[in-house]
Amino acid sequence: MIQNNWINDLQLKWGRMQQAMQQMEADGCLLTVDVNLYYTTGRIFSGYFYLPVEGKPWFFVKRPNGLKGEQVIYIRKPEQMPELFAANGLKMPEKLLLEADELSYNDYIRLQAVFQPKVTANATALMRKLRQVKTPYEIEQFRISAKQHAKTYAEVPSCFQTGMTDLEFQAEIERRMRLNGSFGMFRAFGANMDIFMGSVLAGDNAETPSPFDFALGGQGMDSSCPLGANGTVLKEGTAIMVDMAGNYTAYMTDMTRVFSVGKLTDLAYRAHQTSLKIQSEIENVARPGTSCAELYNIALQITESEGLESYFMGTKQQAKFIGHGIGIQINELPVLTPRSKELLEPNMVFALEPKYVIPGVGAVGIENSFLVTESGLEKITLFNEEIIEL
Amino acid sequence: MIQNNWINDLQLKWGRMQQAMQQMEADGCLLTVDVNLYYTTGRIFSGYFYLPVEGKPWFFVKRPNGLKGEQVIYIRKPEQMPELFAANGLKMPEKLLLEADELSYNDYIRLQAVFQPKVTANATALMRKLRQVKTPYEIEQFRISAKQHAKTYAEVPSCFQTGMTDLEFQAEIERRMRLNGSFGMFRAFGANMDIFMGSVLAGDNAETPSPFDFALGGQGMDSSCPLGANGTVLKEGTAIMVDMAGNYTAYMTDMTRVFSVGKLTDLAYRAHQTSLKIQSEIENVARPGTSCAELYNIALQITESEGLESYFMGTKQQAKFIGHGIGIQINELPVLTPRSKELLEPNMVFALEPKYVIPGVGAVGIENSFLVTESGLEKITLFNEEIIEL
Repeated sequence: MIQNNWINDLQLKWGRMQQAMQQMEADGCLLTVDVNLYYTTGRIFSGYFYLPVEGKPWFFVKRPNGLKGEQVIYIRKPEQMPELFAANGLKMPEKLLLEADELSYNDYIRLQAVFQPKVTANATALMRKLRQVKTPYEIEQFRISAKQHAKTYAEVPSCFQTGMTDLEFQAEIERRMRLNGSFGMFRAFGANMDIFMGSVLAGDNAETPSPFDFALGGQGMDSSCPLGANGTVLKEGTAIMVDMAGNYTAYMTDMTRVFSVGKLTDLAYRAHQTSLKIQSEIENVARPGTSCAELYNIALQITESEGLESYFMGTKQQAKFIGHGIGIQINELPVLTPRSKELLEPNMVFALEPKYVIPGVGAVGIENSFLVTESGLEKITLFNEEIIEL
Repeated sequence: MIQNNWINDLQLKWGRMQQAMQQMEADGCLLTVDVNLYYTTGRIFSGYFYLPVEGKPWFFVKRPNGLKGEQVIYIRKPEQMPELFAANGLKMPEKLLLEADELSYNDYIRLQAVFQPKVTANATALMRKLRQVKTPYEIEQFRISAKQHAKTYAEVPSCFQTGMTDLEFQAEIERRMRLNGSFGMFRAFGANMDIFMGSVLAGDNAETPSPFDFALGGQGMDSSCPLGANGTVLKEGTAIMVDMAGNYTAYMTDMTRVFSVGKLTDLAYRAHQTSLKIQSEIENVARPGTSCAELYNIALQITESEGLESYFMGTKQQAKFIGHGIGIQINELPVLTPRSKELLEPNMVFALEPKYVIPGVGAVGIENSFLVTESGLEKITLFNEEIIEL
């Protein structure tokens, strides 16, 4: 079941979970959602991962056939678990953690009926909290993604041909991503967070408000996928914001660079430099213990001092965050909002993305992925940060 | 809010919903999941669609900014709805339909607390039942997808170069898809149905069992995405099954063709011909009123008469269906299983995919999308059905 190169990482994660469960006085945690299974077992399968507050984890597998290992038990349906608990001398949990923000209502009710715990608590909240502080193995994975992400961005200028649309440009970037090892898969937390491989925003399409919780919008190709590129022709004077996925390992980096066809307006360059100034100021200030709200406020203050509020994080609709944790999902914790109560901790990894949308030009700004170290921030997505003329 | 070209289609859908709600004695239906919002409003937004059993629907919108129209009301949170119901003379529902198989447990509980209905019933089950019988507008959309799907498949031979891996081949097919108008987005019903743009299965990778409810498996690039291509080199004697998405409109067609490097074994060709025979026999038999179980059984009987059971729908793990409804999601109703109680109805659209996996060669077989008409089946995905040598 568990590959050898993973076992230390998984044991570290199980230990953190059990420590948290002790504090919550929970007896067990049952996980079945893809990202939580991957986090705790190193693979995605159909079935359940059960961790008691003490002792080793159990793997109840429906599919695929053929998994072997310690404490791996095949089942057809969750209703078999109580009997299997009894047969294996495993105590039924009185306080059980279930993924309340991810399981469907019917699936949750079904598991509640199976286990009949006295109390349930929210495994989604616990796992999202634990997952925000990364392990050494996870940090290694981010570094691999970051390197490939930068490699793809270095190829972006060669994807451009005069007269292209944003969609044609994006299709060629997607091909380079795939050839550089992108998995394609793009995971986000929350309902209706529909996105495909990232976003290329050109010109005034960047002003289109989005139904989603991503930083910027875009009309998209169709009302069924209302995000990103919409067929805009890449003409002289257009800013093109490339914010494509860093999904080269299961741990995604997040990184945005701006390209231009010819020269942009002075306002666009000034706004871009303001983004770089925000990034630089946040790099100076941030360390373990810094509040995420403070980082947002730095960005807002610098924006106000430049008189750029009406362009900040959109025009017709403005996102109220300037960064977010990254990991197996693109929108992990913490979130850098004005009201965030979270403090930075060592080994958090987050994306910082102060951006501006300039009517008549497009979106400008920067996004990089940062690791929080004992002494400050380490930028892991390294590539030219100026606006690159195509 | 609603575009003019859509209004007739949406009114037809609302009418069907209200008819079903009358039969269930439900007072109202509240939808918030992406596919159901798209189905009932023609767009995806963040918010809620509310249809009372009689009268016009209401649109409670959180994002994007700027939507206008009759009965469009902006809200920040669902807790505002009771007050807005009262202010607009809208009766609070005593029996309320909520998406019990799609909403998270916490979201469902929250909506229950907001509306405090005497009874709730499952909107997911209702919508999946209604969505399986397509409207004229939806059928038009399938025809557009089918045409582009076939266009891409005609380009597949030109995507191949000697010595390529399955992943390189797939990356080039994906580029052609995107240039032919593929939205990229691939929607599936159910938890953990993680797939990117479809599947290319070459050689023995087709034997790898999958954790998912798709017809075949494949190891994938990584244990976080265990499906499809895995880096297999496309060498002489290999069958390559191309089952890539038909997502050229919001209504996806499903279509598989097999390509080969050089010649395959006699067994592989015989199995492929058996798939075509199954398809042909099902085309002869199927009409409104035919049971989906009967279609599965035809496939199984023909398979047994050819002695191919051990290759049918996989080897190490065998899928127990040979087809499924298609639509906004790739796995809609009905499902063609041995135990299915569903009967074909006019304007259902489904994919039929009898397939075999031949060890040492790869996967062979056919998949096409069919419309159920008054008199039988109409195949809508039209393209050469033999194994195409690259």
